[in-house]
Amino acid sequence: KDTYKIAVVHGDGIGPEVGRAAVAVLQTGVQAGTLQFVEYPAGAAHFLETGDSFPVASFEGCRAADAILHGAAGIPGVVHRDGTEAGLDFTLTLRFKLDLFANVRPIKLYKGVPSPLGRPGSIDYVIVRENSEGLYAARGAGALLREEVAVDTLVQTRKGIQRIVRFAFELARTRNGSPKDGRRRVTCCDKANVLRTYAFFRAVFDEVAKDYPDIESEHVLVDAMTVHLVNKPSHFDVIVTENMFGDIISDLGAATVGGMGMAPSEEVGDGIGFFQASHGSAPDIAGKGLANPYGTILASILMLRSLDQRYRDSRLRLGADRIEAAVRAGLEDATLRTRDIGGNATTNQVVDALLKLL
Amino acid sequence: KDTYKIAVVHGDGIGPEVGRAAVAVLQTGVQAGTLQFVEYPAGAAHFLETGDSFPVASFEGCRAADAILHGAAGIPGVVHRDGTEAGLDFTLTLRFKLDLFANVRPIKLYKGVPSPLGRPGSIDYVIVRENSEGLYAARGAGALLREEVAVDTLVQTRKGIQRIVRFAFELARTRNGSPKDGRRRVTCCDKANVLRTYAFFRAVFDEVAKDYPDIESEHVLVDAMTVHLVNKPSHFDVIVTENMFGDIISDLGAATVGGMGMAPSEEVGDGIGFFQASHGSAPDIAGKGLANPYGTILASILMLRSLDQRYRDSRLRLGADRIEAAVRAGLEDATLRTRDIGGNATTNQVVDALLKLL
Ligand SMILES: CC(C)[C@H](C(=O)O)[C@@H](O)C(=O)O
Ligand SMILES: CC(C)[C@H](C(=O)O)[C@@H](O)C(=O)O
Repeated sequence: KDTYKIAVVHGDGIGPEVGRAAVAVLQTGVQAGTLQFVEYPAGAAHFLETGDSFPVASFEGCRAADAILHGAAGIPGVVHRDGTEAGLDFTLTLRFKLDLFANVRPIKLYKGVPSPLGRPGSIDYVIVRENSEGLYAARGAGALLREEVAVDTLVQTRKGIQRIVRFAFELARTRNGSPKDGRRRVTCCDKANVLRTYAFFRAVFDEVAKDYPDIESEHVLVDAMTVHLVNKPSHFDVIVTENMFGDIISDLGAATVGGMGMAPSEEVGDGIGFFQASHGSAPDIAGKGLANPYGTILASILMLRSLDQRYRDSRLRLGADRIEAAVRAGLEDATLRTRDIGGNATTNQVVDALLKLL
Repeated sequence: KDTYKIAVVHGDGIGPEVGRAAVAVLQTGVQAGTLQFVEYPAGAAHFLETGDSFPVASFEGCRAADAILHGAAGIPGVVHRDGTEAGLDFTLTLRFKLDLFANVRPIKLYKGVPSPLGRPGSIDYVIVRENSEGLYAARGAGALLREEVAVDTLVQTRKGIQRIVRFAFELARTRNGSPKDGRRRVTCCDKANVLRTYAFFRAVFDEVAKDYPDIESEHVLVDAMTVHLVNKPSHFDVIVTENMFGDIISDLGAATVGGMGMAPSEEVGDGIGFFQASHGSAPDIAGKGLANPYGTILASILMLRSLDQRYRDSRLRLGADRIEAAVRAGLEDATLRTRDIGGNATTNQVVDALLKLL
């Protein structure tokens, strides 16, 4: 490919600030002509203006792109008639319509970033969250009877588990970074001792694991997992888990490496990938220059590496390495950290410095 | 009442060690004649011996008691034909047959106990976990079709939510200990933005909250909750949540205050209460004198306070206060901490010292 089309949706709150930051860094960090950015509107603010939170044209633009880069979405109180938030439409529509079954959440503690843990040690693992079924299968489909009983259904399919577990093992083989003890390891996080869906998840995990004898595999119950992520995070390499559990433990992981502002997210299916920081739109700090742009920039690095995996293009690889080096340098410099990670820098100060470093 | 009948089940692994420790402390700390202990067999070891993990006689003994005190249960690999662990029968049978709908998990950082958090501040909140429905409604009832699809059902009833939320608000009014800023507060932890069951949980929570205008109420999404429990634990007073979420976040809370060895659990319905430490049977350290007895002793204190709430008996109240003072003194003494909380003391050394302090 000559040029990769990147659909950019800025969204709400701090979305445009961090989105523009990431685009600026990509434009400087990656060889000119490699990436082509096209902006599309979507989100809660767009819903307020037009009554449409995710226009068809925006969806088509995203679908036709090689990757989608998102700022952040959501305005409190901006909801549909059924009470669901308009800000969620963009992410959830892409996720389910494009069958982005793997949600990849790297949890990495960068030098200079304060962790709430007293002795964090080296933290560098990836949570692979199943993103297409599990308890989220019930999204928008649960039942409420006479305001007396509410029911949601957790569904796990063999196909769904197989593809996410396989994805996790493949990732363990190829990813940069490795656990402290140097062993490649995939950890299945479930609640197999109580629920059949999770017992099934574990059983299929064990089947798939047989195809990867070079990689250690293990099981950890979700409740125990929260303890380990706090007490021995350096143990982990790749963790694979059901949708709802993945939602929960990936935020916990993010908290240990500096918070939601330091946690990028990749959602990927059989083709296109969707990239954003894990944080929300933080309306309380929007427009004040306080937003931490590193999360979205880290998501851009994920995007470049993911495109390179697929198209083998050294311009992407070099760009990713270059931007990551700048991010490392930025984070090590106390004057280039935003408030949420213990500094005083504004969004623009960070971006300007990164552009200079590039 | 003259005498309170305490059904004691030691269980497996370190269960007998911590169970006996708690009974010894209760016998010395509470005025003679107040408590009467009767031991009953149950657990995975008993299953191996007799083929029965929870004999009817034991169940009847537990049901007829004023409170149930448990050590710990479970031996890895000791399972029923359907693959479920024999060690779980005791807890889950009591929970569901006696309709112990409230699982109370105090999360408190005692002076002297190391927290994995760098700056834990004061941590003193209680998680009230709904214990009778939610995703656990599907326990033993999920479907598995042709080894292709597994389904479990999350069920929330208005009655179930009402009683647990009411329980949480009542607890906020009466409990010892208070959040740092001195405000009584109940936090509803849910995932109302994605699932109908949790939206229903939140809606009923809001209705019940109106009956408690003296107490602040708020909502936190479960994913964000994991971040807050690590970054600002001192904010919380009482947290109320669905069964599965409660299972997850109460272990996370325990991790921040010294681990599972420091986390007592109370399960209570309309009458009898069931008390144990939150930890498992830790077969790897069983019989080595390494078990931390504080969790079970803290559970005994919960038991005394719970009985006192119901029967208003100063012998119980005084006993609880006395034992808690001894526990505090023990934990502040570096030589009286077990290995899991940064010390070298054996189980017996801790117990002997506590008995002396009493
Ligand atoms: C915004 C919300 C629907 C979403 C989720 O629950 O999956 C978010 O928390 C996430 O982690 O991507
Ligand atoms: C032993 C297990 C069934 C139980 C649960 O999942 O509820 C335990 O983790 C707990 O927290 O009490």
